Amino acid sequence: MSSGKILVAQGGGPTAVINQSLVGIIQQARRHREIQRIYGARHGVRGVLNEDFLDLTGETAANLEGVAATPAAALGSTRDKPDLAYCREMFKVLAAHQIEHFFNIGGNDSSDTVRIVAEEAAKAGYPLRCIHIPKTIDNDLVHNDHTPGYASAARFVAQAFAGADLDNVALSGVYIGVVMGRHAGFLTAAAAACRKYPDDGPHLIYLPERNFDTERFLADVKAVHDRLGRCVIAVSEGIHDVQGKLMAEQLATLSERDAHGNVQLSGGALAELLAGLIKARLGIERVRGDTFGFVQRSFLGCVSPVDQREAREVGEKAVQYAMWGPGSGSVAIQRVGQYAVDYPLLPLQAVAGKTRTMEDEFINATGTDVTPAFLQYLRPLLGSDMPEIHKLRAPAVARILRV
Amino acid sequence: MSSGKILVAQGGGPTAVINQSLVGIIQQARRHREIQRIYGARHGVRGVLNEDFLDLTGETAANLEGVAATPAAALGSTRDKPDLAYCREMFKVLAAHQIEHFFNIGGNDSSDTVRIVAEEAAKAGYPLRCIHIPKTIDNDLVHNDHTPGYASAARFVAQAFAGADLDNVALSGVYIGVVMGRHAGFLTAAAAACRKYPDDGPHLIYLPERNFDTERFLADVKAVHDRLGRCVIAVSEGIHDVQGKLMAEQLATLSERDAHGNVQLSGGALAELLAGLIKARLGIERVRGDTFGFVQRSFLGCVSPVDQREAREVGEKAVQYAMWGPGSGSVAIQRVGQYAVDYPLLPLQAVAGKTRTMEDEFINATGTDVTPAFLQYLRPLLGSDMPEIHKLRAPAVARILRV
Repeated sequence: MSSGKILVAQGGGPTAVINQSLVGIIQQARRHREIQRIYGARHGVRGVLNEDFLDLTGETAANLEGVAATPAAALGSTRDKPDLAYCREMFKVLAAHQIEHFFNIGGNDSSDTVRIVAEEAAKAGYPLRCIHIPKTIDNDLVHNDHTPGYASAARFVAQAFAGADLDNVALSGVYIGVVMGRHAGFLTAAAAACRKYPDDGPHLIYLPERNFDTERFLADVKAVHDRLGRCVIAVSEGIHDVQGKLMAEQLATLSERDAHGNVQLSGGALAELLAGLIKARLGIERVRGDTFGFVQRSFLGCVSPVDQREAREVGEKAVQYAMWGPGSGSVAIQRVGQYAVDYPLLPLQAVAGKTRTMEDEFINATGTDVTPAFLQYLRPLLGSDMPEIHKLRAPAVARILRV
Repeated sequence: MSSGKILVAQGGGPTAVINQSLVGIIQQARRHREIQRIYGARHGVRGVLNEDFLDLTGETAANLEGVAATPAAALGSTRDKPDLAYCREMFKVLAAHQIEHFFNIGGNDSSDTVRIVAEEAAKAGYPLRCIHIPKTIDNDLVHNDHTPGYASAARFVAQAFAGADLDNVALSGVYIGVVMGRHAGFLTAAAAACRKYPDDGPHLIYLPERNFDTERFLADVKAVHDRLGRCVIAVSEGIHDVQGKLMAEQLATLSERDAHGNVQLSGGALAELLAGLIKARLGIERVRGDTFGFVQRSFLGCVSPVDQREAREVGEKAVQYAMWGPGSGSVAIQRVGQYAVDYPLLPLQAVAGKTRTMEDEFINATGTDVTPAFLQYLRPLLGSDMPEIHKLRAPAVARILRV
């Protein structure tokens, strides 16, 4: 006899739309008579290990819609990366509760966990279906055109840089914004999305897909600043030198190592280190650095409607695949035309534990900007309600005194 | 014979709605047949000094509406704080161009500039009307219930903390967000605006209106963390010790000065210094600090509709006062009931160069939170479309294995 029990978990860094996927699963599950109980694991796989479940069956539709529109992770998340022993313990708990379907919403670590748990269940002859639902602001899942959460974070980054660039026009100088993304530069690249007028920034974009060279960076900044009297720079937190060493670590020790120069960096985060470097080496007075921090992934009220819809749909599809489909797998987003998507179910092995980085065609030849192909890729993900900037078009008045 | 020329300038830090005031002035000016030319000074008073003007007369209405909805300062801004000699030079330029009305949009420094220029014109017997239009995210103009720009920045801070708090629920630890405001804590205080459920953060709010005590701070954080297993803290960049020394400076030298402890701070901005302090002294592992930076004042797409409307209206009123009113002055926002506003014209001397800080009734007894009176004050400014958070209300599932 079937228990009719399913379990949902959320893993990794919070996003603006991960709760859409949770609610997509719950609402679709309610349409299936075979499903009698919908459990949620608190704090992801750790909640499975600790047998820490909520019974979501009785949530009202209105509250679920409210939760869906709320950022972060309503069930709680975790940074745990389960090994085989951990997954075996998880499986014991799932078996004890007679869970028949396990849905894990997360990035490539989460999909790998799903893969191991599914394998353990198969070995034990326990009929568990395990579905991975994609989620990550890093946009780094292979075989996915993009991932839920990315577009909303990209909107934040795009809107932040649009504003910071206008701020930099109003009060000139150099501005550096440091964006999340250790290995994949997709989120940093989104900084370019709101550019409209010829001299709009960011004027320079540094991605982890390219090696960072401090001297070339300084030359790049100087060239832009000489031309425009200002410069706006988007930097990924994951930029590294040719040896793969993170610039955040490298620059922090620069003042000690630099015997022939007189660079004195003040310490702190990457944005401040780069700002200090520009001040010291280029003699530019007004240099400001911001680290976008947690705000970029969890800001309440900056969401792409496309991202919301797709995050909901991957949850729905996960339950459909579990109930009607061929078994375990990873729901993917694949683009059809410009712009529609399909949600195929991929084998877990195809996605699990792998990392996508930005394709070469998305990065320009000098490695300091994105290409038109990237902007065309990104645009439909952001939604049709993106705010746009406008500037005055007024002519100058002829001088009388200072001619 | 009248030249029919007016001049507009923008000063100080950019805001989300300062261009609304600019467009309010332009659109109202176009309704007056006496006004024939509308000039804009590039980069504020510096543009006056340098005779660097745009002729705004021929801007289309559609582009003006686009500019009004764009953050920062469309004419450019400046940090110059003119002294008497500077103002005298400005006045010479105004006289050469036969400017009859000078509109300066800015904070208390800008109003002081307007005051001096008006006095110089009066001394010279030149019929110049000078109007100051309020603007500052710091909300620190006296005799104003609030200032244009504050509510939109407050929304950003409120929405950022709402998201950061949910993020902190999902992946627990301590979170510190550092908010702009050297002397007035209004913007930091807005961090509390989205709290809804009993344990929602920020749990601690530190304002420049109260002296900061490092030991009490650590005890406060420990108490919240012991109770909830997490803690979200809003900190004003202007917090200082009892001697008035900024904590940002004080903590930066703490590792050197601290002979009896073993605190090792990593340097950097206030958020990182406080995070390092908590890690070192309280032994809490996951401590994260964000500095909201420029994003909070110029983010594209986070605007209070009330703020937009009022910023437009103070521009309109400025022109009305200049054309029909008693002469020079500062347009103010005064609250009528809950919630409507009036826009009286105050004498420039009443506002110029003075700084408002948070009233005692807005800060709680321990100095670590705002009062209900503050939340009631703030709420109508944010607009009726504020996003709201929602949480699951699901019951726990009984354990089977780990009983």
